[in-house]
Amino acid sequence: MQLGLVGLGKMGFNMRERLRAGGHEVIGYDPRPEVTDVPSPAALTDALTAPRVVWVMVPSGSVTHDTIVALADVLSPGDLLIDGGNSRYTEDAKHQKLLGENGISFIDAGVSGGVWGLTDGYGLMVGGSADDVARAMPIFDALRPPGPRADGFVHAGPTGAGHFAKMVHNGVEYALMTAYAEGYELLSAADLITDPQAVYQAWTNGTVVRSWLQQLLAKALEEDPGFSRITGYTEDSGEGRWTVEEAIRLRVPVPSIAASLFARFLSRQDESPTMKAVAALRQQFGGHAVKRVSESG
Amino acid sequence: MQLGLVGLGKMGFNMRERLRAGGHEVIGYDPRPEVTDVPSPAALTDALTAPRVVWVMVPSGSVTHDTIVALADVLSPGDLLIDGGNSRYTEDAKHQKLLGENGISFIDAGVSGGVWGLTDGYGLMVGGSADDVARAMPIFDALRPPGPRADGFVHAGPTGAGHFAKMVHNGVEYALMTAYAEGYELLSAADLITDPQAVYQAWTNGTVVRSWLQQLLAKALEEDPGFSRITGYTEDSGEGRWTVEEAIRLRVPVPSIAASLFARFLSRQDESPTMKAVAALRQQFGGHAVKRVSESG
Amino acid sequence: MQLGLVGLGKMGFNMRERLRAGGHEVIGYDPRPEVTDVPSPAALTDALTAPRVVWVMVPSGSVTHDTIVALADVLSPGDLLIDGGNSRYTEDAKHQKLLGENGISFIDAGVSGGVWGLTDGYGLMVGGSADDVARAMPIFDALRPPGPRADGFVHAGPTGAGHFAKMVHNGVEYALMTAYAEGYELLSAADLITDPQAVYQAWTNGTVVRSWLQQLLAKALEEDPGFSRITGYTEDSGEGRWTVEEAIRLRVPVPSIAASLFARFLSRQDESPTMKAVAALRQQFGGHAVKRVSESG
Amino acid sequence: MQLGLVGLGKMGFNMRERLRAGGHEVIGYDPRPEVTDVPSPAALTDALTAPRVVWVMVPSGSVTHDTIVALADVLSPGDLLIDGGNSRYTEDAKHQKLLGENGISFIDAGVSGGVWGLTDGYGLMVGGSADDVARAMPIFDALRPPGPRADGFVHAGPTGAGHFAKMVHNGVEYALMTAYAEGYELLSAADLITDPQAVYQAWTNGTVVRSWLQQLLAKALEEDPGFSRITGYTEDSGEGRWTVEEAIRLRVPVPSIAASLFARFLSRQDESPTMKAVAALRQQFGGHAVKRVSESG
Repeated sequence: MQLGLVGLGKMGFNMRERLRAGGHEVIGYDPRPEVTDVPSPAALTDALTAPRVVWVMVPSGSVTHDTIVALADVLSPGDLLIDGGNSRYTEDAKHQKLLGENGISFIDAGVSGGVWGLTDGYGLMVGGSADDVARAMPIFDALRPPGPRADGFVHAGPTGAGHFAKMVHNGVEYALMTAYAEGYELLSAADLITDPQAVYQAWTNGTVVRSWLQQLLAKALEEDPGFSRITGYTEDSGEGRWTVEEAIRLRVPVPSIAASLFARFLSRQDESPTMKAVAALRQQFGGHAVKRVSESG
Repeated sequence: MQLGLVGLGKMGFNMRERLRAGGHEVIGYDPRPEVTDVPSPAALTDALTAPRVVWVMVPSGSVTHDTIVALADVLSPGDLLIDGGNSRYTEDAKHQKLLGENGISFIDAGVSGGVWGLTDGYGLMVGGSADDVARAMPIFDALRPPGPRADGFVHAGPTGAGHFAKMVHNGVEYALMTAYAEGYELLSAADLITDPQAVYQAWTNGTVVRSWLQQLLAKALEEDPGFSRITGYTEDSGEGRWTVEEAIRLRVPVPSIAASLFARFLSRQDESPTMKAVAALRQQFGGHAVKRVSESG
Repeated sequence: MQLGLVGLGKMGFNMRERLRAGGHEVIGYDPRPEVTDVPSPAALTDALTAPRVVWVMVPSGSVTHDTIVALADVLSPGDLLIDGGNSRYTEDAKHQKLLGENGISFIDAGVSGGVWGLTDGYGLMVGGSADDVARAMPIFDALRPPGPRADGFVHAGPTGAGHFAKMVHNGVEYALMTAYAEGYELLSAADLITDPQAVYQAWTNGTVVRSWLQQLLAKALEEDPGFSRITGYTEDSGEGRWTVEEAIRLRVPVPSIAASLFARFLSRQDESPTMKAVAALRQQFGGHAVKRVSESG
Repeated sequence: MQLGLVGLGKMGFNMRERLRAGGHEVIGYDPRPEVTDVPSPAALTDALTAPRVVWVMVPSGSVTHDTIVALADVLSPGDLLIDGGNSRYTEDAKHQKLLGENGISFIDAGVSGGVWGLTDGYGLMVGGSADDVARAMPIFDALRPPGPRADGFVHAGPTGAGHFAKMVHNGVEYALMTAYAEGYELLSAADLITDPQAVYQAWTNGTVVRSWLQQLLAKALEEDPGFSRITGYTEDSGEGRWTVEEAIRLRVPVPSIAASLFARFLSRQDESPTMKAVAALRQQFGGHAVKRVSESG
């Protein structure tokens, strides 16, 4: 089928490739001339045959919001807009309402798989009405991995459910990464272990902990043994924060996801104010030495 | 090659099957007549051609220790004993010394894969000398999954390294399970999500969080939707505790592994004394209501 | 000076007592006839001499909001309203604006001390303009403990700063309670310790951990040794949740406050869905026994 | 009464002062000539009238052990040795046995209060027989704070109970410090709060969180606003590690104590290997940027 695709960055670019390889007609728009198929959003809508399906794949937050607002003006009643970015699920009802006022349908789609999705397929979690989901199914089928549909795609519920599921997915992802990373640090710290990388390589098959992320960690260690070329500075994209906020709203204890989030915050601090306060307290009551600023490495 | 196998429980029984299917001659001993090949440990050593290789696959702790002590008496110089159970790695040097005094070699082997190892192969992490490891390699090759040896087997270091790596593996396993489980609880608590099981099924392919454990959770949810038939009571086998103890010894922060361990402790308490104290404190300073014993469900 | 006090519950009732004992004229309003001084909010404003100072001490959330909205109608330009409840600090700017449109000033005040404040004085954290704070200072001075003003009172910053400081105070309070409570559980679990209560009593003086909360825990243990009469079920009032949400917004790692919050959530669950999922996973890969619903106590 | 005191460091020196001020005859030994009363341990025992009471106040671990072994040789049957250092409680039974073989009694004493104990008195937790404890009571009474004995002293149980209680005390202390420190970081991060130090000062009186440690944090902030002169590097002395190890042995969940311990480990790392692994993983699956070593500040 025909699809308009707005946003041809790391994700959108690859998705266009995969969809075209799957036999679909994709017309992509991106402000960067070197990747775009059409010169403007208006040109995109002109190039598409109504009723149109347009997939928005741009950074979450204001960029997504502004893009949807702009498309609401140029799309027509009966068109369908799919937000495939990492929008917070609470945005979805607002966008559905905004578009619905112009007769435009809305699906929220969580897309997982990163840069590997081009070849392996993308895991998809979508929210919206059954009719809208059915209408876009050829696109979902081309994007998702081969095999049973239920193994790489889910219609998770009404509007917002797709992004909610993706948010939880990313929260879990945070905690999985921390789990493997703590194991790596333990193996690295132990004199007994000759080569932590070899252990991670050996875990890729047969073990209970085997996974795609685990394979990637083995690969990363192979490429940069001991991670000597990088720091531990780690950004967070919002999904982890939202997951913990949502857990609080729902009164769900999530100690391991929260620990993973806090570890990222900490990784970006030069000095921890919390630990300065602890060090200062120890000195106050016990006369314990503190490390002065001038002593620090 | 020929192997003696002591212990034919859930793990040992399946390993005998897999080794025989791999063309090896396995003589198994177990106190249960219905599974054993020989009537006694002495009969086992008699039945094996020296120099022997004997694999011990019995519960860790005193059972493993007593088994190794008993075998030290009936084995001969030049024989090789492999402890494939979940022994604490600190036991290995003692057992190596004990056996070494009788000229018997020792390998510690961590074996992962659970009941699925029979068909999928077992992930193996071993410690010991290069010569001893080479000698037992045909056995390791038959037990591990097909494919490159380095993807399911590692000679992790000297004596103790195999069990150390397995201990860390299990610590990571605890944290992975908690990560997926927290995600499950979040999905279950959200009204938006129509069917958490379907989301877990969809995560099995294409997503960043896909893994063998993730597939098992989807399977478990399919078999018992909402986990209505089980409680959250969860034992721990020792490996998780040892991992945190070792982390403390090595000064490695392991918040997510520790959180997973503590969650298991808590799952086995009818009432948390910690939370009783918190509830009592709230009542003291704020006059906040507590839930009396008679009110509890 | 003269003060109107709206809300004569556990906190407001005692505050009226303390203020009157401090020589102030307090006219209190509460819907409960047995405690109120005047029959209605309108009667309260009539009874006060303009420019009035009115302290609102009602449950946070909609009750506080509705009370402030109602008072905005009956108060006059030049009056000052103080919100002394546990409102979320993000509400304060809205209330300031709402009141400001009628020429009414606003102070947000965090009040700590619980039922003991009547005799010991209340710890106060306020936000607002310097002029407004100065105007209400006689009231603050009567409510706070005797001694230097800076030891029990702080003008923490502009509007919202008082409730923000109180929110953090309560987050810290959560973590302190958990700290003492974990220690209590450890002492209780140890055979060596003859009487945990006696240890907590002994910690009340001379030790590094001595505190008011610590004294209360000793007292609670004296009144109910072993906490045999209560369950661990513990409510949370919102401040702990907001603290963690705020920490996330500010990218501040708060593992111990978050752990304390999650422990409260957990204390209110009959069964943990997270641990059900963990138990189910263990059974899947290892054939480990689960505790069936019928087996649970 | 008469007391021999071995070890005149930060703690022992002050204790000698306080005991002498309390009317006791203290003969102190320390290898440093400028503080010692006698030139050698042998001279100490010579100077004391049998049956002697000797208090050992030296660093825990091998120094304490060696000191007790040496004293076992020079003391006489009927003498009493008190280990007042931060020994691990598991050492106590060994030392009791060692001394008991020479007819010497043993008490383990946990001493809290730091450098402030000289003036405020020390919180004491002791283990041993009732007779031995009664014998040393005049010393305990002089060391502990004035007021009821039960408020600053506890005979916590048999040998080991004193050090066990002190270990838990320190574990709780770790968690309390983290609680206050997290609150400090939150206040510091918030634009709304004009002066975090003023808030901590205001918390010293009337609030639920008031405590001695809280006062010390306010004092520390006054001396070094913003903690600009120190780093967060924080040692740990062993007690925190032992508390978590003991919690694991007793199957007691201690998330907040463990988080506090791990935060100290982390404070001493230049780079977190765990977070390097997380950063590397993010790059692998998502092509997310990592911070190269050369970019780090």
